[in-house]
Order: sequence, then C-alpha cells, then structure tokens
Amino acid sequence: MKIIVFHGSTRDNGNTELLTYQAVPKEKGTHIYLRDYNVLPIIDQRHDESGFDVVEDHHKDLINQMLSHDVIVFSTPIYWYSMSAPMKIFIDRWSQILRDPGYVHFREELSKKKAYLIAVGGDTPKIKGLPLVQQFNYICQFYKMTFADYVIGKASKPGEITKDTAALKAASTLIK
Amino acid sequence: MKIIVFHGSTRDNGNTELLTYQAVPKEKGTHIYLRDYNVLPIIDQRHDESGFDVVEDHHKDLINQMLSHDVIVFSTPIYWYSMSAPMKIFIDRWSQILRDPGYVHFREELSKKKAYLIAVGGDTPKIKGLPLVQQFNYICQFYKMTFADYVIGKASKPGEITKDTAALKAASTLIK
Amino acid sequence: MKIIVFHGSTRDNGNTELLTYQAVPKEKGTHIYLRDYNVLPIIDQRHDESGFDVVEDHHKDLINQMLSHDVIVFSTPIYWYSMSAPMKIFIDRWSQILRDPGYVHFREELSKKKAYLIAVGGDTPKIKGLPLVQQFNYICQFYKMTFADYVIGKASKPGEITKDTAALKAASTLIK
Amino acid sequence: MKIIVFHGSTRDNGNTELLTYQAVPKEKGTHIYLRDYNVLPIIDQRHDESGFDVVEDHHKDLINQMLSHDVIVFSTPIYWYSMSAPMKIFIDRWSQILRDPGYVHFREELSKKKAYLIAVGGDTPKIKGLPLVQQFNYICQFYKMTFADYVIGKASKPGEITKDTAALKAASTLIK
Repeated sequence: MKIIVFHGSTRDNGNTELLTYQAVPKEKGTHIYLRDYNVLPIIDQRHDESGFDVVEDHHKDLINQMLSHDVIVFSTPIYWYSMSAPMKIFIDRWSQILRDPGYVHFREELSKKKAYLIAVGGDTPKIKGLPLVQQFNYICQFYKMTFADYVIGKASKPGEITKDTAALKAASTLIK
Repeated sequence: MKIIVFHGSTRDNGNTELLTYQAVPKEKGTHIYLRDYNVLPIIDQRHDESGFDVVEDHHKDLINQMLSHDVIVFSTPIYWYSMSAPMKIFIDRWSQILRDPGYVHFREELSKKKAYLIAVGGDTPKIKGLPLVQQFNYICQFYKMTFADYVIGKASKPGEITKDTAALKAASTLIK
Repeated sequence: MKIIVFHGSTRDNGNTELLTYQAVPKEKGTHIYLRDYNVLPIIDQRHDESGFDVVEDHHKDLINQMLSHDVIVFSTPIYWYSMSAPMKIFIDRWSQILRDPGYVHFREELSKKKAYLIAVGGDTPKIKGLPLVQQFNYICQFYKMTFADYVIGKASKPGEITKDTAALKAASTLIK
Repeated sequence: MKIIVFHGSTRDNGNTELLTYQAVPKEKGTHIYLRDYNVLPIIDQRHDESGFDVVEDHHKDLINQMLSHDVIVFSTPIYWYSMSAPMKIFIDRWSQILRDPGYVHFREELSKKKAYLIAVGGDTPKIKGLPLVQQFNYICQFYKMTFADYVIGKASKPGEITKDTAALKAASTLIK
C-alpha cells in the first residue's frame, strides 16, 4: 500500500503538517508540499472548440505521482472554512486532466484509490470544517474513490495542535 | 445602496455571469472580474515575527473597492463543489488584510455590509452546493456581515443556465 | 402524474401548509395531514429473531397511499432545525416496512417516485434548514428516489409566510 | 460536574448505548432511557391565545432532571440520517417549556450547560451523520449552550460497535 500525502499548507511545519505526520510519518509515504510546486489556476476551457491550452507547470508531475500510489491523503489547513488555495488550485485542474487524451483512464484510476482528509482550523473546526468534509466526500463520489476517513484538528498558533490530543490520537490510527 | 459584484469565473459570459446579471445588471453596480486582476495566493505569515511581507498585486485595490460599497455579491461557478480558485485566493488574502495596519477597521467595516452568493454548478448543485453556502455563511458570521440570501443555478454547457428558469427568477429578485 | 402531500405540521393552516398549497393546491393531489392519523414511533426490532411485532395503527394505510402516487411532497415545519416529530415518526417506521413480507417491493417502488421537500422555519431557515435538506437527500438516495427539488420558507407567526414572496413564487413552480 | 445522558435508542443495549457507556459508564452520571418514559409529541400552540394545553406525561420530570445537571449527553441512533423519534419528541417539546411560566429561566439555565452528542449509524455515518451534528450545533447555539464535542460511531447489527475502535477510543475521552 503506497501512500501519498498532498500538503496544502503555505508554511513549514504548521499545525496541519504536524497532525499529518501522526497519520503518515515523514519517512513513510511520499510527501508532496504543494507550496514547493508551480501549479496554475485552471482557465475553464472545457467548452472551447480547441479545448484546453497546454499549461507549463508541475501539475502533470503531481498527477502522475498521485496515480502511482494507492492511498491519497489530502492535508489542508482550513482557511475561511474551506481548503487552502494551493489545494483548491491543484484539484480544480483535475477538470483539465479529465479532458486530456493522455489521461483517458484518470477517472477509472482514481476509482481504485482510497482517500483521507486531514484538516486543521482555529475556529470551531469540528463544526465549521464539516462543509469541507462534505465537499471532499462529493469529490470522492465523483471519481468513485473510497473516502475512507478524516480527522479534524483544532489549532491556530504554531504548535498548538499538540494540545488537541483527541485529534492526534485519531490521526495516529487513521490510515487503515 | 452601492452594489459590488466579484465574479469568480475564469471564462467570459459563462453561466454564472449570466445568472448574476439577472440579479445585478451590468450597468447597475460595480462588476469586478477577478480573472482580470493579479491576486496572489496567501503565504501564511500570521505567526511570523515580522508579519506579512508586502505583496505587489491588485488585492488592496479590490479590497478598497469592496469597502466603498454597501452590498457585496459573490458570484462563483462551483468547481469541485466549492468556490473557484480565483475567489478562494481573493478571500484567503483577507487574513492578511486583517493584520494590516492600514486596515484596522476592516472587520468593523464589513460588519455593516450585506452579502449575497450566486453560484452555478453542473452536478446537482442545489444539494452539492450547500456546503459552499454554509461556508459563505461562516465567513459572513466571522465578520458579522449580513448574509442576506443566495441563489444556486444549475448549468454546465455554455448558455445552459437559461433553462433554469427557477434560478433566473430567483436571481431577478435576489437583491433587496 | 399523481401527487401526494404529507403534511407534518401539528396545527391547521400553519405557514408550512400555506406555502405547500402554492405548490400543490388543495384540490390537486392527495393531502395527508399526519396529525389526523395514529402512527406510533418505531420500536427497533430489526435484529429480533421474530422480527417486528405487528403494530395496530394507520401507518400501512399511509404507506399504501404513498405507493399509489407518483410524486411525494414532504411538507414540514422546521422544529429545532429538523423535521417535525410526526414526520419523523412516519419515516422512521419505513424501516419496519422494509422488512415486511407484504412490502418486498417497497424500495423498488420508491425508486420510481419523485420527491419534493417544502420546509418552513423561523430562525434563518435558508441556512439552518440545510441539514434537513441534506437528510432528505440521503433518504431519497437510499431508495434511489429522485429528490427533484425543495423550497425553504421563512415564517414564524401565523400567516407570516405571505411576506416571503420569493418562497411563494418558488413554490408555485416547484412541481415539474 | 454532574452528567446526565439522554438515550434515544428504542432497544436495550444497542450499539449507541454501548458506545455511550464508553463516554459515561453506567455508574457515572444519570442515565435516562427515553423509551421508558411517556413523552407526547408537541402540538404547536405557540400562537394560540390561551397558549399550550397542559400535557400529562413525563416531559417536565425529564426537563427538571436535565436542569439539575451540568453536562448533557444526547445519545441517539441515527435513524434515516437524523435523531430517533423519541429524542426528537423530547426536544420538540422544549418549545412548550420555553413558554411555560414555571420555566422562565429555561434558556438561561441551558446556557450554562455543556452538551455532547453521541450518534451511531450504519450507513456511512461519519458523512451522512454530519447534518445531524449541525442540527445539534444549532440547537446549542439557540440556547447558548456549549456544544463541547461529539462522536459518531458506525454499527448496524447488535454489538457491531465493538469493531469501531476509533469511535470507542474517542468516546472514552470525550467528556472533558
């Protein structure tokens, strides 16, 4: 079982990352820090006659890496009650992949994968983070991916996640 | 009552825009097409000693425009069950504004405003768009902005929104 | 297209009923006022060896009526952010019907039907009523019923629904 | 800290009860099994001139018990994606208590309490149980009660909850 983690944080060693390492230690699995890659926001050309323009960035590299793993962990701080912009940019571009002749099996490939969500927020995240969970569930449903489980942690200041012992414990047994 | 509309679409005259013009015709209100501006994703430096680095882009111009209106309409296509990346990038950066000495009254100013949401999606949006609505509600709650109302339209192909007569009608009387 | 409406209000001519008559006038469709029937809360005997005890009440009559129509409208006031107890009692007992040898086709029959929800609440129902909408969606999903649409009205005092012109208008074109 | 648990199950020793005993062992706290009490569904007479009729049942006894504790645990099986009918009936009647001259401090009293939710369902409850969580959150908000935390367990057949070790562990440290 090969695990890949997509980190949506924009700072190093933030609370979301710390919680995520409880689930997938650094040395286990492939850790992708989206902030280290150049991924451009989608331009919606689904309905253009000539389709999507080629985009020169790291998106396909990341998609290729994703497809070569069995388990995908989405790790995102909760910014304004939803996923971080880098995570959103990464996922929005899947619409382009879906129409890319090089990825005709994208949907089918994803349907074989298991997904997990790890999210950390400062403002009552176990309630106000639930719409985010529901959105990931819909994403997984679209691809018939198994949305295996999720953990929501509460933290705001650096290191504060260490106080959310329930989340830390839950994360440590998250991946099955 | 001065109305400003933030358009989160990445293409011209898309379904979301057409629906939005039912609520706020082009000649009424200020229409901001986020795709025409350079706004960079936030780098979370809330906890850096020196705070946020200055960012050279259009974000503050847009914030200034927003603050000079009474009613804010957020108009976004539903991409993967949440707001478009340009809209998310625009809103994420509010965290930086909140800590900017030039905007000490940001929160208070927003508390006097009325917000509306217009969203259009292709995949059962009146159900799968509800988490997005809840997120906007939480954003408004944070700023004590009035979340006055919302309309969700269903459309995928160009122009298809014209078939969602219920949404068109609802949009035409949305702003009160 | 035969329409049946289940009214979950506990008072006559309440706001929910008034809104519902916009969608299905009294003389169109079959109107069932759950308060006029004796339906007992379920006793969960799904896992009893002998199964469910026979219950002497009106539940099967109501189920039979439901099954003889094509379109089902659930009309409920929002009590504490969810459906009224009479509506909940009525639906909870479906678990018993599912195991009743007299109703082996219950699930299949429901899968051919279209469902609508009409709900009215006093406390920001277009936001706080959304979990209720999501629950009806899950119920429909379970039975593969089409959850065609819903309307949420805002009203508290008797007659107040007449002020929610948007809801009244939406209700009047709800059933397609 | 005095704890009271309201059990909404309709069968003895069901999965929801077993999970709840992890959070509040039988000998700790007051355990109320709603199925053992006679509580009648509300008749909405909020707007009747003479107000609510007196109802002869156990509801006030239960309310009195609730008010004499500091922590309230709502424990309910998830029936059709929301709380069980006995739990709903119990809570719906709070609308009557709110207008009872004998309970003028009801709202204020509740505002000092901490609430927890324990819910168990068979159909992907960690997703499809989220609207239920949101509804309890709104109920708590209305009374300004602290909605301290919740646990969702997955189980259908008798005893099956013992396999949801994550939920059992979370329940065992739920009450703080």
